[in-house]
Parts: sequence; C-alpha cells; structure tokens
Amino acid sequence: MKLVNAEIITVGDEILYGQILDTNSQWISKELDAIGIKAIRKTTVPDVEADILESFEQAGNRADIILITGGLGPTSDDLTKPCLASFFDCELILSKPALKDLQKIFDKLGREITETNRQQAYLPEKCTMISNRVGTASGMWFQENGKVYVSMPGVPHEMKIMMTEQILPKLQSVFQTPVIYHKLIKTIGIGESWLADKISSWEHQLPDHIKLAYMPGLGEVRLRLTAIGKDLVRLQEDVADQVKRLQLLAGEFIYGFDKDTLPMVIGRSLTSKGLTISTAESCSGGSVAKSLTSTSGSSRYFTGSVIAYHNRIKETLLGVKPETLINFGAVSEETVIEMAENVRTNLKTDIGLATSGIAGPDGGSEEKPVGTIWVACADHQKTVTKKLSLYKDRCANIELTTQAVLNLLRQRLAEMDGEKA
Amino acid sequence: MKLVNAEIITVGDEILYGQILDTNSQWISKELDAIGIKAIRKTTVPDVEADILESFEQAGNRADIILITGGLGPTSDDLTKPCLASFFDCELILSKPALKDLQKIFDKLGREITETNRQQAYLPEKCTMISNRVGTASGMWFQENGKVYVSMPGVPHEMKIMMTEQILPKLQSVFQTPVIYHKLIKTIGIGESWLADKISSWEHQLPDHIKLAYMPGLGEVRLRLTAIGKDLVRLQEDVADQVKRLQLLAGEFIYGFDKDTLPMVIGRSLTSKGLTISTAESCSGGSVAKSLTSTSGSSRYFTGSVIAYHNRIKETLLGVKPETLINFGAVSEETVIEMAENVRTNLKTDIGLATSGIAGPDGGSEEKPVGTIWVACADHQKTVTKKLSLYKDRCANIELTTQAVLNLLRQRLAEMDGEKA
Repeated sequence: MKLVNAEIITVGDEILYGQILDTNSQWISKELDAIGIKAIRKTTVPDVEADILESFEQAGNRADIILITGGLGPTSDDLTKPCLASFFDCELILSKPALKDLQKIFDKLGREITETNRQQAYLPEKCTMISNRVGTASGMWFQENGKVYVSMPGVPHEMKIMMTEQILPKLQSVFQTPVIYHKLIKTIGIGESWLADKISSWEHQLPDHIKLAYMPGLGEVRLRLTAIGKDLVRLQEDVADQVKRLQLLAGEFIYGFDKDTLPMVIGRSLTSKGLTISTAESCSGGSVAKSLTSTSGSSRYFTGSVIAYHNRIKETLLGVKPETLINFGAVSEETVIEMAENVRTNLKTDIGLATSGIAGPDGGSEEKPVGTIWVACADHQKTVTKKLSLYKDRCANIELTTQAVLNLLRQRLAEMDGEKA
Repeated sequence: MKLVNAEIITVGDEILYGQILDTNSQWISKELDAIGIKAIRKTTVPDVEADILESFEQAGNRADIILITGGLGPTSDDLTKPCLASFFDCELILSKPALKDLQKIFDKLGREITETNRQQAYLPEKCTMISNRVGTASGMWFQENGKVYVSMPGVPHEMKIMMTEQILPKLQSVFQTPVIYHKLIKTIGIGESWLADKISSWEHQLPDHIKLAYMPGLGEVRLRLTAIGKDLVRLQEDVADQVKRLQLLAGEFIYGFDKDTLPMVIGRSLTSKGLTISTAESCSGGSVAKSLTSTSGSSRYFTGSVIAYHNRIKETLLGVKPETLINFGAVSEETVIEMAENVRTNLKTDIGLATSGIAGPDGGSEEKPVGTIWVACADHQKTVTKKLSLYKDRCANIELTTQAVLNLLRQRLAEMDGEKA
C-alpha cells in the first residue's frame, strides 16, 4: 500500500545561520510517522520570498502534504503569509475568527491590540484559519488539487498544540492512511548496548509486520514497536504479546509505556498507595521537585521540598547533624541519609528523597571528583541509597541525578507491591 | 559584496522519520557563518538514489558550496558515494591513501580489514580524498566549474574533526570570504510586536551593512544584528554604536547579550553586589531554584529554597499566617508577599523570591482561572509583586512563571544600581 507523503519546510534565517536548533521538524516527523504519513524531505529556507516560493513549488511536485513552520510573526522579516497568498494567487483579507482569537489573547493581557498585531488577523482568502490559543499567529490550511499546505508558527509549543489538537486529526480525515500501531516501551537504568544484548533473542523473533527502533536519550532508552497492517485490534494484540515476551527479559528496567513519564508513573503509584512525598535537594537544586510537580494532580502526593544548597540550611531546616557534615562532608552517604529521613519527618510525608553531590564543572577534589553524587530514598521501613559517578557536564549531572533518585523510588515502590502480594 | 553561498544536504531515512535529531547541520551552519559563508538552504533526503541526485542537482543550481553528510557507511543502504560517482560521471576506483587510513584504523583495533570495509576505500575517480582519522569512511572533495561538493560521514564527531581540520581551511583558501560579525540582544518582558513598534525608528535607520532579525522564544525575544564587511574591529564598533542607540529605546527590556542567560546575568549581578538569595515556591514547584542553580558558581549566592505545595508547609516552614490563607487564599498577592518576605528572613538571605498560582490544567475557578499566578521579590528595602494571567498549558505556565519572577528580580537589581548611582 502506497503511503501518503509529506514534506516539512522550515522558514527562517536563524536556523540557516545555526542560531537556533530546529527541533520542530523532528517532532513533526515523529507525529506523521505515528499516523502512517511518510516524511520524504525536509527543507530549511531563508527569509527570502523567491526561496520560500521555490520550496513551495518543488515540495508540491513531490508530496501530498506540505507542512510549513515559521515566518508568521508580525515583523517585516516574516514572509510566509504573503508568500502563501501569492503562491495560491489570492488576497490577504481580515479573518473575523483570527481577530477574535487575537482579541481573546489581548483581553487576557489586559492590553489594546496594536496595529502590528492587527495585521496578523489578515489571512490569505483561500485558506481555512487554524486557531492558535496560545499565541498571536493563526495557522493556515490550504487544500487544492488533492494537495494540502499547512502553515504553522515556529514557536515550538504553539506549533505542537496546533498539530496535536487540529492538524493531525484533520490530515487523518482527509487522507486514507494505513493502520499503524506504535508502542513505546520506556526503560531506565540500563545502557543501549547492554539492553540490545539482553533482548537480541527477542528482537530476532519479531514478526515481519512489527519493526523495532531504539531511541536512546539522556539516562533512558526507549524502544518503539511499529506494527503496520489493516486491523488495529489485531495489531494491538500482536504487539501486546511481544511486550509480554520482552518483559520476561528486561521487565525490571521498564518503567512505562507510550506517553508515560517517570514522574507520571511514580505519581500514579503514590496515589494508588495513598502515599505522600517530599524532597531534600542539594546538588539537584530543585530539579527533583520540579520533575515531580511537572504532572498535573501532583499536589495530591507532593507536599513540598527543602532545597539546601548551603550547609546552614541542611542543619536548620533539615536537621542534619553538624558532626555528620564535619566528619563525612556534605557529599556523603551519611549526609544524604539524614537529609532523606529528616525531610520525611519534618514535612510529615511517607517518603523522603534526597540528593547531595558535586554537579560541577568546578568544585571537585581528589577523593570526591566532579560528578560524585549520592541519592537516597527513605520510607517508614527503610532507607535505600545509591552512589553515582557522573561527568563534568553540570546540566547532564543534574538531570541524571534527578532520574537516579526517581528510579530509586520507583524500584522501592515496586518492592512494596511485592511485599503486599 | 556578494557572499559565497552554501547548501547543506543531509542523507538518511532515520532523520526523516524523526528517529535522530539532526544536530550536524546546525553545527555546520555556525562554522560557515563564522567564516562568512552564507548557508542558504538545508535539505534532508531519504536513502533513495533519485532523491539524492535531485538534491545534488538543485543545490548546485543555487549554491557555490554543497556540503553533504551521511550515507557513507559500508552497508547497502548507504548511497551517497555511488550517487556522487554517477553525478560526476566517473568510476569508483581504489584510493591508496584511503586504504592506508583504513589500515591504520584496523591496526589500532588489532583486526583484519573485512571485505565490506575494504569497499570503503573505493572512491569516485574525480574526487580528492579527505582523510578520516577517527572512522572508516573517507570524506570526498569535488571541484568542477567553480562549484565545490564535499561529502562527509554523518557521525557527528567524525564530521566535526574533518570540517575543522581540513574542509573549513580549504574552503577559505578556495573562496574569498568577507568578515561577518553577529550580536545577539536578549529581551524579556515585552512581546515581539510591542518591541517591533517600540524600536521601528531604530530599525529603519540601520545602515545597509547591518541586518536585524527577530528570534522570538517562549517568554523572550532575541534580536540578532549581523554586520558584514572587511574589517572586524570596524564592524564591532558599528554594532556597538547601534546597540547603544537601541538601549535608549528598549534598554529596560534587554537582559543580556550573546551567550547570556537570565540566571547567568542575575548571578553576576548578585555576586558583584555580594547579595544572597532564596526562593519560596508553590506553583513553580522548584523551577526557579533549578533555574538559579543551572549556572556553575551559583552556590556563592543561592542559599536554598522552600517548595511549599501544601498549605501546611506554607505555614510551618514559611510562616504564612493561617488567616492570610483563609481570607485571601494561597493564590493571592498577600500570600506571595508573606512567602517572599519570610523565606528571606528564615533562610537569612538578602533577597527572597516567591511564586503562587494555578499552573493547571485543572484546579481553576471563576474568580481565579487556571493560569492565575502571583510572583514576588522581597529585599531589605521593599517587596515588589506581579500578577500573571497565563494559559492552560502547565509546562508553559511553570516556565513563564519562572521567567517572570527572575525578571522581577532583574528589574529590582537594576533599580538598586540606580539608587547607588
């Protein structure tokens, strides 16, 4: 079966000059892939009319769907809209719905619409306006001779909301796409090559209509199973069967599926167990709390945190003993245990998490080099700890520390399930 | 002066399907930009001969230099080399220097060269081989009718070493390149269109050799000035002069330049003033602390935080009065003021920041809809507050809240400079 083809066009000098990393088109590719639309080319063009028009022309000769991001701002170097008008040979006219959207945004801000912004409500006559509820630039949908051109803002979160809520569903209704079923399997605590060795026997017995892709990320490896066919229920059964087999080989590393995030999975488990949690953070500087509160509804189980960068705070708000800090130092198993146990007691929660380490790039020593980090998880039964030896990269260290302490908690919660069973 | 133009072609299905984020072309763009070569297009093509050849053809019609990455592996789906041979109408022949490079690599590994790898030493007759000292795929340099085509491996560190050590210098010797100077000006607290209105008079008086570009992001707008000429010092002076003029119009919104981030700029100001800071966070859930501690050396001024999600923590650790919470609610100016002032006192810091609001997507009310957020900044002289009316998107709200309270602090620090002066 021939797949529907799409091309992605990114408009903007800032990307060509390397000032911005284009993450939009990768995100779009994945979303298209997930609904069985095949991206056959990506093009980035400068803020120059002739180049933009040429890219519209050439993409239209190859693909069924042309997705355009960027160049929709209100300023003089934003050319996508005039280019679309001339490409589809029509005028820019005031779009009442677009103006209404603008009005909503400006009412919220309690501001008057400026003339420059008012111009953003003028859209090519031939397009269907696509509402933007988080920004001032509307999207545009053109459909002519079986081809669809869609124009979206370049600001990632505006584009993503527009794609997810309006454009992807519309594309599925307009084009006949095959049945594709994806399953993302998310693992943590094991490197890509070790995982590959562990599951190679499973990988080799996969049926032809199910493909496996490795998607390694910082601190985690995601596996994506893609099943292609005609009957969704059948595909789901086939994939579910393969996931069962996989779990026998690598179950302990699998924390979730599809849209699951580690904080989400932990949140569900804490909610179902009726447990509350608090954190005491030194080197992670609030990253663990931010991560736990990234999911809505986290107020049901997350109570609060003490970020204790300065040792004085470790003593006053967390009650870490001065002699512990003197004898073992702030970056030690002893300190991190007291932090986890005391934050649990002081904030009256069931579980306490703690981190302490040298995030870097400076501040290391012979005995405790940059990247030396301790994490701990304390509950009513016991306190578990883990030592990490990471890198010189501060941001990566903070991220990996956050994942490590959350994974420690995840393992502990799984253990509790075991105890109950 | 006409710039030398370059196009970047990336070969590979894995990028089109979104399995890999293409970071190579951004890196290449930056390097070209730094030596005054202008990237005018980026194209990603699949592992399909016809598409690859079409991209070579079209790029050659537009640009002087065509840089190609990927598709040089030893496997059957690596088509760049055969495509280059047919594009330049020549045979693949064994390259002695390429074979020598391979030999070196395999000697290092203490392995025999496999036949598959031996094939990698066969290169198009018309190319100059470019040595790859860290991988098995040689680069290729083609020069015909004033156009240069360069093919490089897709593995980032192999490509980067090849570009830095051999290709960039060679391009500079073959083409006459101008001097280019970029200045990024980073603003916060004003939308793109208001900024555009505010500085339009300045924009219109910019000399021809200095171009302006708007680069909007979540919560901030960056302006990029690009100056082109022959003399770097002269260009730097011209740009500095324009930046001075801009500051008269929009100085209050400019927080930094080039690689500056808001936490970095704030960190520098706190350090120079010898001030310390702490945060009391509700809806931002640790994001402000994480942001402040993202820069190395932050332990000099950041002492700690209390994340008070639960009202009990607001009362116990932050001493917010129960009657304040009852009469005005947790999301109120009154509460956020007490949070900021008390965290400052309790953690013995010079400055206290606070946030409280409804991050969403749930939990809003008639009177306080989702996105209603209060932020505060307290110091020894006064406490300033700001009310935000944001969106339904939890992550965006947390990010924008963090920026808003940091910007409040930035403005207060600037005010202190004024008081001193």
